[in-house]
Amino acid sequence: MAGFLLAAIMILLGSSSSSSSSSSGSSAVLEPLFQYIHGHQNEFVQRLGEWVAIQSDSSDPAMWREVKRLLNVTAQKIQEMGGRVEFADVGTQQLASGETVALPPVLLADFERDARKPTLCIYGHVDVQPAKKEDGWVTDPYNLTEVNGNLYGRGATDNKGPVLAWLHAVEAYQATKQELPVNLKFIIEGMEETGSDGLEELTRQRNESFFSDVDYIVISDNVWVSRRPALTYGTRGSTYFFVEVKGVNQDLHSGVWGGCYQEPMSDLIALLDSLIDHSGKILVPGLNEAVAPLTEEERKLYENIHFDVEEVKKEMGINHFLQDTKEGILMARWRYPSLSIHGIEGAFSDPGSKTVIPRRVIGKFSIRQVPNMEPAVVERQVKEHLQQVFTKRKSPNSLAVTTTVGAKPWVADLKDPQYVAGRKAVKAGLRNFIVTIIINLLISVFISTTK
Amino acid sequence: MAGFLLAAIMILLGSSSSSSSSSSGSSAVLEPLFQYIHGHQNEFVQRLGEWVAIQSDSSDPAMWREVKRLLNVTAQKIQEMGGRVEFADVGTQQLASGETVALPPVLLADFERDARKPTLCIYGHVDVQPAKKEDGWVTDPYNLTEVNGNLYGRGATDNKGPVLAWLHAVEAYQATKQELPVNLKFIIEGMEETGSDGLEELTRQRNESFFSDVDYIVISDNVWVSRRPALTYGTRGSTYFFVEVKGVNQDLHSGVWGGCYQEPMSDLIALLDSLIDHSGKILVPGLNEAVAPLTEEERKLYENIHFDVEEVKKEMGINHFLQDTKEGILMARWRYPSLSIHGIEGAFSDPGSKTVIPRRVIGKFSIRQVPNMEPAVVERQVKEHLQQVFTKRKSPNSLAVTTTVGAKPWVADLKDPQYVAGRKAVKAGLRNFIVTIIINLLISVFISTTK
Repeated sequence: MAGFLLAAIMILLGSSSSSSSSSSGSSAVLEPLFQYIHGHQNEFVQRLGEWVAIQSDSSDPAMWREVKRLLNVTAQKIQEMGGRVEFADVGTQQLASGETVALPPVLLADFERDARKPTLCIYGHVDVQPAKKEDGWVTDPYNLTEVNGNLYGRGATDNKGPVLAWLHAVEAYQATKQELPVNLKFIIEGMEETGSDGLEELTRQRNESFFSDVDYIVISDNVWVSRRPALTYGTRGSTYFFVEVKGVNQDLHSGVWGGCYQEPMSDLIALLDSLIDHSGKILVPGLNEAVAPLTEEERKLYENIHFDVEEVKKEMGINHFLQDTKEGILMARWRYPSLSIHGIEGAFSDPGSKTVIPRRVIGKFSIRQVPNMEPAVVERQVKEHLQQVFTKRKSPNSLAVTTTVGAKPWVADLKDPQYVAGRKAVKAGLRNFIVTIIINLLISVFISTTK
Repeated sequence: MAGFLLAAIMILLGSSSSSSSSSSGSSAVLEPLFQYIHGHQNEFVQRLGEWVAIQSDSSDPAMWREVKRLLNVTAQKIQEMGGRVEFADVGTQQLASGETVALPPVLLADFERDARKPTLCIYGHVDVQPAKKEDGWVTDPYNLTEVNGNLYGRGATDNKGPVLAWLHAVEAYQATKQELPVNLKFIIEGMEETGSDGLEELTRQRNESFFSDVDYIVISDNVWVSRRPALTYGTRGSTYFFVEVKGVNQDLHSGVWGGCYQEPMSDLIALLDSLIDHSGKILVPGLNEAVAPLTEEERKLYENIHFDVEEVKKEMGINHFLQDTKEGILMARWRYPSLSIHGIEGAFSDPGSKTVIPRRVIGKFSIRQVPNMEPAVVERQVKEHLQQVFTKRKSPNSLAVTTTVGAKPWVADLKDPQYVAGRKAVKAGLRNFIVTIIINLLISVFISTTK
């Protein structure tokens, strides 16, 4: 059962004295909590199933009502536990249709505050990426299903499970009448999978109010590298590119027009093919030069990370990665940029055959960025490169490249006291098999001891 | 109103003595027919609207019930006019799901036969290509709509209008109590847009029965080059290619896995980009060598074809074609092969952004073929070429290329007596503005005079 909550623990903000031993981590306090959690497993899983069943796909504005519904369910659970909630407005978005609609709000919540305790703010999100059976799901993505002891469902780990795990941790403290060792706040959003629109602005606005007494922020929204829990101390940033090639006024019949017209699809395919070679190297001039050089100290860090290349290859069903060594593979995933082509909008994408020449197509790709790349510079480099390739083709069509910038890349100091607390919590929590809830409990325990 | 029936006339089979003048083409016989047609315009358009509203999209097996429904409507109209109908079974098709389903049948019909008259067999189809508003339709594709005197609707010209025009021609003869100058047969199918599965086999099977007394076949299923009616004496053939690149067991998160894995989309984009250059030249080795050389006589034919390049560019909304001259453009469309990339199945194709790495993608393109290309040779050349490009990429993914062969290319003799009859009918019919029905009437008149 532990496998379904693949949440990695990130402690990003705040700083405090180094860790010390404390009685609050003792078994006398923790035992009743652990017992409660063990006794309520089925109930926790059932609640996760209810959350997974809510199709909170934030990529489709038509589904935002479901995102909002799950935010309401979350708020209600917090209120039932005595928390105060606020739905913070984060503005509107103009849809492709021209219509302007309100974004799902961000849920801010806190509990009664004890000035003697440190304050921990939990970040999470309740929205998901799209999921269709034809994408390769073996089970119904919106019906949490157990297969060989693992639970499968869209959002089960990213990020509904981890959010619920925190709520269940609070529930365990309250039900066993234990005192929480920290003050808790929550910031839960519903637009993470499509770029967290408005979130950055909101955190700035509330810096002197909601966040003024926050000592630590914990984000459980990442994956484990292997079966061992992982502490994430950095993530790559991301910019999403839309490459639109627009041609004639309407779709054409390829039997009638094929051969005399430079088709938007040929242009787009050539543009996309100019981005990356078969070794995974990004071909946009200048882009790789900004990447922070690898230090010897950093290189050594990778040697001790558990990652069984052969096992992962077997699991994924491929016979080789682009890199030959464990270190090479992990560095490609974490400390070097990458480019993925996601798809094409406007072309024929259904099963079967259709011989139409589409008049307007939009290619979509994203670039994962690392320190010291600057999203604005990357955007300019990519646009210039695409424009150059397009100009050489002497196309009668028009090109327009637009972007949405996701997160910037970041990297934290592993020796920071919060990472020490996180590491201790993970180690202690591993002895128990309902890993995430236990780790969450222990994080709050160890955080309180480092204050 | 004439503009909506853009049917070109093709007379393919049979042979007879050269044309001669005849009284059956005189105004005494034709006037009442023309008057009837003029008086029933609105009714004819209304019936076309009913046919267009039936979404007989043959590319989607789920819509075959609508294809069958329209075949039934057609059969009923023929029966009401005293015709005999038969639904010929043309076998089954295995769907991607593994399910085997019956193909829509082919409708064979004839009327009472007079041994002294020649027999004309009319070919037509009642299925259509898919049509969605987002493909660029200004009006609802399944709601026949008049805009500035033209009628717009999926299938209005290809091929519901022309089929109905023939039925209305028969109706006009009967209503005005005129005797049809020819015996009529119909062969109407519902799978033309997806390769006419089973049709070739059926015509072979019925060669000694249904087709044994057929002197001429007329196909009104092509377009006009300009606003002048056109007689088609050849069409390009077509082979449709499915290029499947299959990788890992499931879709991957590009933030987590991007950079260490050679993605199926990169492979597919490179494969598709290896097919055609920006001048429209097909890059598959050997493919262009089979093309029949251009003779001086053929070159001259193109000089007199009406095709206003500037007007067409303006209509289409582009500033240049791949060729500089009228002759070059028309030859590229008719007598040289072309390759069009239609789309990708399995990748992200919806509006918005999604950062998933698709595990399995299928690229789709088709090659229009001309004399003397052999579909089997083309298929082998393309497969070898794609395999070579793929091998060089040293990909961990697997490649599978499959095809469906459409029609073979063909070219007929323009001096054949049937083309002479067709030409006369088009010229005479042009004086009247309900062009297609009148032309259909006249074809039967002139055909009868060449027997």
